[in-house]
Amino acid sequence: MKRRGVYPFTAIVGQEDMKLSLILNVINPALGGVLIKGEKGTAKSTAVRALAELLPAMETVKGCRFHCDPLQENFLCDDCTAKFHSGELKETETLKMRVVELPVSATEDRVVGTLDVEYAIKHGEKKFEPGLLAQANRNILYVDEINLLDDHVVDVLLDAAAMGVNTVEREGVSYSHPARFVLVGTMNPEEGDIRPQLLDRFALSVTVTGEHDRGNRKEVIKRRLAYEADPEGFIASYQKEQEELADKIAAAGELLPEVTVPDVMLDKVADLAIDLGVDGHRSDITMIKTAMTMAAFRGSREVNTEDLKIAARLALPHRMRRRPFEDGTLDMEKVLATLEG
Amino acid sequence: MKRRGVYPFTAIVGQEDMKLSLILNVINPALGGVLIKGEKGTAKSTAVRALAELLPAMETVKGCRFHCDPLQENFLCDDCTAKFHSGELKETETLKMRVVELPVSATEDRVVGTLDVEYAIKHGEKKFEPGLLAQANRNILYVDEINLLDDHVVDVLLDAAAMGVNTVEREGVSYSHPARFVLVGTMNPEEGDIRPQLLDRFALSVTVTGEHDRGNRKEVIKRRLAYEADPEGFIASYQKEQEELADKIAAAGELLPEVTVPDVMLDKVADLAIDLGVDGHRSDITMIKTAMTMAAFRGSREVNTEDLKIAARLALPHRMRRRPFEDGTLDMEKVLATLEG
Amino acid sequence: MKRRGVYPFTAIVGQEDMKLSLILNVINPALGGVLIKGEKGTAKSTAVRALAELLPAMETVKGCRFHCDPLQENFLCDDCTAKFHSGELKETETLKMRVVELPVSATEDRVVGTLDVEYAIKHGEKKFEPGLLAQANRNILYVDEINLLDDHVVDVLLDAAAMGVNTVEREGVSYSHPARFVLVGTMNPEEGDIRPQLLDRFALSVTVTGEHDRGNRKEVIKRRLAYEADPEGFIASYQKEQEELADKIAAAGELLPEVTVPDVMLDKVADLAIDLGVDGHRSDITMIKTAMTMAAFRGSREVNTEDLKIAARLALPHRMRRRPFEDGTLDMEKVLATLEG
Amino acid sequence: MKRRGVYPFTAIVGQEDMKLSLILNVINPALGGVLIKGEKGTAKSTAVRALAELLPAMETVKGCRFHCDPLQENFLCDDCTAKFHSGELKETETLKMRVVELPVSATEDRVVGTLDVEYAIKHGEKKFEPGLLAQANRNILYVDEINLLDDHVVDVLLDAAAMGVNTVEREGVSYSHPARFVLVGTMNPEEGDIRPQLLDRFALSVTVTGEHDRGNRKEVIKRRLAYEADPEGFIASYQKEQEELADKIAAAGELLPEVTVPDVMLDKVADLAIDLGVDGHRSDITMIKTAMTMAAFRGSREVNTEDLKIAARLALPHRMRRRPFEDGTLDMEKVLATLEG
Amino acid sequence: MKRRGVYPFTAIVGQEDMKLSLILNVINPALGGVLIKGEKGTAKSTAVRALAELLPAMETVKGCRFHCDPLQENFLCDDCTAKFHSGELKETETLKMRVVELPVSATEDRVVGTLDVEYAIKHGEKKFEPGLLAQANRNILYVDEINLLDDHVVDVLLDAAAMGVNTVEREGVSYSHPARFVLVGTMNPEEGDIRPQLLDRFALSVTVTGEHDRGNRKEVIKRRLAYEADPEGFIASYQKEQEELADKIAAAGELLPEVTVPDVMLDKVADLAIDLGVDGHRSDITMIKTAMTMAAFRGSREVNTEDLKIAARLALPHRMRRRPFEDGTLDMEKVLATLEG
Amino acid sequence: MKRRGVYPFTAIVGQEDMKLSLILNVINPALGGVLIKGEKGTAKSTAVRALAELLPAMETVKGCRFHCDPLQENFLCDDCTAKFHSGELKETETLKMRVVELPVSATEDRVVGTLDVEYAIKHGEKKFEPGLLAQANRNILYVDEINLLDDHVVDVLLDAAAMGVNTVEREGVSYSHPARFVLVGTMNPEEGDIRPQLLDRFALSVTVTGEHDRGNRKEVIKRRLAYEADPEGFIASYQKEQEELADKIAAAGELLPEVTVPDVMLDKVADLAIDLGVDGHRSDITMIKTAMTMAAFRGSREVNTEDLKIAARLALPHRMRRRPFEDGTLDMEKVLATLEG
Repeated sequence: MKRRGVYPFTAIVGQEDMKLSLILNVINPALGGVLIKGEKGTAKSTAVRALAELLPAMETVKGCRFHCDPLQENFLCDDCTAKFHSGELKETETLKMRVVELPVSATEDRVVGTLDVEYAIKHGEKKFEPGLLAQANRNILYVDEINLLDDHVVDVLLDAAAMGVNTVEREGVSYSHPARFVLVGTMNPEEGDIRPQLLDRFALSVTVTGEHDRGNRKEVIKRRLAYEADPEGFIASYQKEQEELADKIAAAGELLPEVTVPDVMLDKVADLAIDLGVDGHRSDITMIKTAMTMAAFRGSREVNTEDLKIAARLALPHRMRRRPFEDGTLDMEKVLATLEG
Repeated sequence: MKRRGVYPFTAIVGQEDMKLSLILNVINPALGGVLIKGEKGTAKSTAVRALAELLPAMETVKGCRFHCDPLQENFLCDDCTAKFHSGELKETETLKMRVVELPVSATEDRVVGTLDVEYAIKHGEKKFEPGLLAQANRNILYVDEINLLDDHVVDVLLDAAAMGVNTVEREGVSYSHPARFVLVGTMNPEEGDIRPQLLDRFALSVTVTGEHDRGNRKEVIKRRLAYEADPEGFIASYQKEQEELADKIAAAGELLPEVTVPDVMLDKVADLAIDLGVDGHRSDITMIKTAMTMAAFRGSREVNTEDLKIAARLALPHRMRRRPFEDGTLDMEKVLATLEG
Repeated sequence: MKRRGVYPFTAIVGQEDMKLSLILNVINPALGGVLIKGEKGTAKSTAVRALAELLPAMETVKGCRFHCDPLQENFLCDDCTAKFHSGELKETETLKMRVVELPVSATEDRVVGTLDVEYAIKHGEKKFEPGLLAQANRNILYVDEINLLDDHVVDVLLDAAAMGVNTVEREGVSYSHPARFVLVGTMNPEEGDIRPQLLDRFALSVTVTGEHDRGNRKEVIKRRLAYEADPEGFIASYQKEQEELADKIAAAGELLPEVTVPDVMLDKVADLAIDLGVDGHRSDITMIKTAMTMAAFRGSREVNTEDLKIAARLALPHRMRRRPFEDGTLDMEKVLATLEG
Repeated sequence: MKRRGVYPFTAIVGQEDMKLSLILNVINPALGGVLIKGEKGTAKSTAVRALAELLPAMETVKGCRFHCDPLQENFLCDDCTAKFHSGELKETETLKMRVVELPVSATEDRVVGTLDVEYAIKHGEKKFEPGLLAQANRNILYVDEINLLDDHVVDVLLDAAAMGVNTVEREGVSYSHPARFVLVGTMNPEEGDIRPQLLDRFALSVTVTGEHDRGNRKEVIKRRLAYEADPEGFIASYQKEQEELADKIAAAGELLPEVTVPDVMLDKVADLAIDLGVDGHRSDITMIKTAMTMAAFRGSREVNTEDLKIAARLALPHRMRRRPFEDGTLDMEKVLATLEG
Repeated sequence: MKRRGVYPFTAIVGQEDMKLSLILNVINPALGGVLIKGEKGTAKSTAVRALAELLPAMETVKGCRFHCDPLQENFLCDDCTAKFHSGELKETETLKMRVVELPVSATEDRVVGTLDVEYAIKHGEKKFEPGLLAQANRNILYVDEINLLDDHVVDVLLDAAAMGVNTVEREGVSYSHPARFVLVGTMNPEEGDIRPQLLDRFALSVTVTGEHDRGNRKEVIKRRLAYEADPEGFIASYQKEQEELADKIAAAGELLPEVTVPDVMLDKVADLAIDLGVDGHRSDITMIKTAMTMAAFRGSREVNTEDLKIAARLALPHRMRRRPFEDGTLDMEKVLATLEG
Repeated sequence: MKRRGVYPFTAIVGQEDMKLSLILNVINPALGGVLIKGEKGTAKSTAVRALAELLPAMETVKGCRFHCDPLQENFLCDDCTAKFHSGELKETETLKMRVVELPVSATEDRVVGTLDVEYAIKHGEKKFEPGLLAQANRNILYVDEINLLDDHVVDVLLDAAAMGVNTVEREGVSYSHPARFVLVGTMNPEEGDIRPQLLDRFALSVTVTGEHDRGNRKEVIKRRLAYEADPEGFIASYQKEQEELADKIAAAGELLPEVTVPDVMLDKVADLAIDLGVDGHRSDITMIKTAMTMAAFRGSREVNTEDLKIAARLALPHRMRRRPFEDGTLDMEKVLATLEG
């Protein structure tokens, strides 16, 4: 059963930070994912599902269940590694990047896949049924209401995210495959917190609120009614905008390796971190990488102060919480001033 | 074993909002369900079960276990999709919409259905035993005492309601089928709260109270005693009223696609949302859709202010709760004045 | 193993309300059961078990494991329905109504019965082992220390009580049979509360206290010692009283369908409910039905004020609790005055 | 493996109430058991285990696994009932009453026995492996540290104690056998309370404290050392005392059916209960039965005031606790004065 | 895999009470075990493991899996009992007493052993795989971090310790074997308390603290470094001291049955208990037995006041805790003065 | 699937204590592990994983699954022991020491390995599938987020760490193998505490904080970006530094057995412990062993005061916590002054 006729990404009214953070992660899958927070009914899920239409194509080993990257010889699954060594890793195919959805009721087995131990014992051969993490390799893994996820599933998610590998081991038999994915989560903060270790895995975080302009609110309703009345027609009317954005994303992905960071920009990031009293270096690195991706999205080969400001807005706020004896809020004005410096 | 001789919907004394909200959901199954709150003994369950008699007929793919809609080619089950592509999707049959009841002690297996993994492995063919969600597709799914439902069952209900699809996956084998249903829940607020995520899935919500008029209360008792003494006779005496209402519902369903919303009505909804400080847009859209359905029920092709007021009464109150630092109550007088505006 | 020689119902000293409430439920099995509350050692269990001797006979389908009523064609089990349609539902047998005891340690399987899924798959035929709910159909289901019952067993009890049907469903195979029973529960309030949903299922409720009259207390001891010393002799000495009461109960059961309720009596019940601010109508209906049964027990065809007063005493008090901002007690004097009024 | 050479009952120094309550239960197994409370090291377990030597013989059906009483035709197991009806219940054998110990780590299966469902299905014949409750029928069931017993085991114990029957039911197959036993429990109140329903099942209750007399304490140590140094010799030296007590117990058991209660004694018990505001009648009946057994132990055919006083001391105190708004203690002086009258 | 080269008992610097309490339990295995409390790193585990080298030999039935004592005919396992009756219990072998270690992660099965029920049913013969309690019979059972032991394992340990027997019962098949052991536990009180019932099973208790003398502390380090650098050489250098102590222990064991207690010593113990208000007699008996063992260790046949003082120091303190309304500490000075008399 | 191209240890900016504590554990695997605490993003995991490149080679029994040390005849697995006794323990192979990672979601089975009981019964031969503890023998066992580890896994880890042996026992079959490993754990103290027993198993502990120098912070970012852009090239540029450090470590390992401790150094350690009121001797011994390893790393054969100071900094702080009535902090200035003496 295929769902088709998804609401177009470009038809979403407002919510610029949310849309930008998703786009940056598509351009640079190594950026580190995004957590989208907001009340119910703020188009969070709609946006992530709509993203599917904008995703670029990628080269994969033909027939590989994990769609391994033939150019990353150190990051192949067991089968592809074997083929690589025997020189058989030749045929490739082009697949579109996908959004893989992890439902909140998913069991651990469904997430990591299952290993048929009896088969392994009888036939001396591993038989692995891939799970959602296999599907998610090199794709976007989307978890709606991520704060409601079962603790055990969060654990395996964290293990996989930390290692870039999913290892299933039962009764002495084990199977590993690459599992590098863009983690996108949405949550309604009214419904409970997210575990801190999971929060830390997200490079970016945005909070969406509803439109407060009468015209925009009406536009939201009108577009929704139009879409519900005639999905196919509505989608067709956004076809051109969608293609332009998809092209811009693809171009940015190609430009990214050429983007450089002027030393003065590094100074700003280091000063900011010292100012804020941040211990870890992950936020510095995330800020720089976000700014570089932003520069590529702008079509530029060099990071500028504006890129840094956007990066600060998207990458810093959720890293400031849980500091004892502080009020946990970030004075973003001051941050921006420091960067302006 | 069939239960027959259900108490007639039209014999229910008073409780106009409850009856209206049920009728609107039958006219427009995409409206989004209704939650009925009230003390024990206020005819909540009686009303939902009585609804069965008023439900319209629908075209379905003949023999399909999920009674797929032959006109929705993008929303077919796996079998129907295959038939569609091979041009075999020709025979249809007309079935009456049904009320499917989900008992509070139901296990997850009973709700989602079961997949015979061994069979799949041996025969290379999926064998799926449909559960209640399969029965509920295109029908009404009724959960009495929904606030007492097991958390895990709520999770799968939420997943299915969000996607319109039920996916069962075990040990690498998966089966999906459409699962779009009108969710109707009843609960006694004295017996504990409902989870917020579940509450948000309901488009409408009504609170029923008992009759406070002596004549009406006597009428309730008299009708009940008459029904218990001679169910068949009692039902017969309401036959005509039942048929009239069923016809009116069917007519409204056919009129609905032609209903339009004047721009000034959209202005009112947007202003109201901004006034109330609502972030999400789901309540705006639900209000408009409810008003459109109400217009159709009135036999009109255009939404008017009265329709909006009814929509506000049914769709807004349960969306205002759980806001921090506010008292969580909605000043309905002010809302109506704004709409009157 | 059969237990015989049960203590005679008519030998119980005092405790008139408890005895009356049990008798009314036997006369009218549709009344809705009774909850008996009281300290340990107040003859609660003795009374319920003793009831067995007074139960009337009933017509059943011969050989049916659920002792279906051949006259209720809409309420037959699957087998009897099949026979009904093929015209084979002819042979009947007369069985005595029974007291079926549900032990507090009973598992869910024992209560609902078990379905042999493997058998169904192999032989294409359902094999159902009936549980206690099957035994309880058309009988009295007695739960001692009902407040200590496992939550999951309470859930299936509530489902069955609400629907009058017991449905067992496992892995896509299901079996249903009628399960209408008189629910009788006893509990010691010192040992914890009963769940509110369960409390609401009881039409009547009585609280038993010990005798405070020296003569009566001595009589209790003497009878008990006499019974323990020579059970058979003791029972024999009450034979006549038992038979008279059994006859009176049977006669009342036959008279009941002819009992009518004068309009002025309905006025009193409605006024009382409005006075008390009761939302639901269940208590009105229960009061009327109790009063009608009481009239039949008196041998009268018309409900009078005394019947209503007794009904108020047995049916109202447990419905008044759990109202917020009130002290939860019922001013029975005022209630009786209203009814007298 | 048999343990032999148990410490003699008559060698226990002091602790007269504990010893008396055990003896009364042996004389009259219908009395209702005893709960012995006391600090560790107060010979509680020693006394119960020592009781084994004093137990009388009883007639049983030869070969019956539940040692049914051939004279109680209404209280036979399934096999013996069948034999009774076919006139085969002829051969009997004389067995000594036993102390059956229920370890605190016992599982439910071990307590109730196990039913081989597969065997029943294959062979159409029940195969039941008796558990501790089968061993306990007509014997003493001893639970050390009864307050630490698993809740589920307590439930089955309560069910069996209430019904005098043990019923095992699995997947539609059931097996019942008589399970009437003298329940003897010991507990250290420092280690947590006993569940109230379990407490109520004990007719008598005593609290043991250590000896506070230098001579007695020394005697305790000396006897213990003597016993540990030479168990066989020590036991031999108490042989005569043991036999005398065993004879006295046996004689009392035979006299018991002839004991009568003067009406004035009943007056005292009834007055006392009304004085104390006791609701239930169980304590009245227990007091009278204890007094009757005491009279038999004295060798008398008539209960006197002294018997009642002993009965009050053993049967009342644990029934006074858990009354709200009172201090839960019993003014035993006043009780005795009331009885003295 | 065997661990060898254990640190010698006699090389432990200081900690005299801990060493003495272990030695006394080896001399007199009926003494009742010892609980050693102390911070991490205080050589608790080292001492217990080192004890293995000093343990005496014992006569056992040859080939018996429980190393039954051929001289204790009332305390044999099932196999040895059968042999005893058929006169085959002739061959014996001499084994060294052992330290059996119970790891904190041990499951109940591992502790009690497992019974192959299927085998018993098929072959009509019991097949029992002995667990740690079987190994522990007549040996030392050592539990490190005993306060962290799983509750269920503690229960079976308590059952076995109370009865001297381990009984495994599954589905009607049971197996018993003797399980009398010296229970030695160590714990760090900073890591949580021990259950009171378990505490009471220990006859003695000592609290170890670190050395506070510079010389001693240095000696501890030096010996440890020497041992780690050359285990074999270090052990050899203590060979003679070890043998002397082992001989002294063996001699004391032989002398013990001849030790007597002067009456005046009993007076002191009884007076002390009355003074302290102790209810149970277990502490009196433990004190006397400890004193007798101490006398034997001194090579004397008569208990003196010094022996009693040592016994008071080792046996009393842990029995004084948990008394309500007292501060739970024991005024040892006063105790010793009382004993001094 | 192999991960390659790990970030070089020598490329880590700053964090000297963390790096030193890891190096000391590699030089002296008997030292006792290290716990690294710090906020997210402080290169903790990076450092441990990077360590792999610096690990020395070791002689192992060829083909042994536990890579037993052929020179430690008292510490061989069962297979190697058998070979040793039959003189077959001849062939060896040289393996590099490894970092074995224990994921936080690992089950107990995966950690301890699994024993095929059925196989053992059928074939009379043990079949053991090694787990992570087998891999960890003689290697580094690394647990990231060790404070989030499941309690049961912590238990087996503690048992193995305490005994140096992993024993798996199921249904009477058992298998043991050596399991001596360097335990390295990392944790973020914001995410909850570590169990005290586990904390005590770590010889050393360091807390890492981020760089607060602008130049260093920039350097961190630059190196990370360089590494991500071209891992192979970046690694190559550190090749020489890596080799020098690896050589220094290997040399220190060879020098270590010759390092001696002057008596005056022992005095300082003993005085310090008495000063601090430490009961256990483990911290003294750990300090000395750390200082000896430090001396070896310096290339010296004698411990000096500087070595002690470093040892105090790494070994003391985490041992001071959890002392009641103290503030749990260690005045390191005073400690160093005492050592300076």
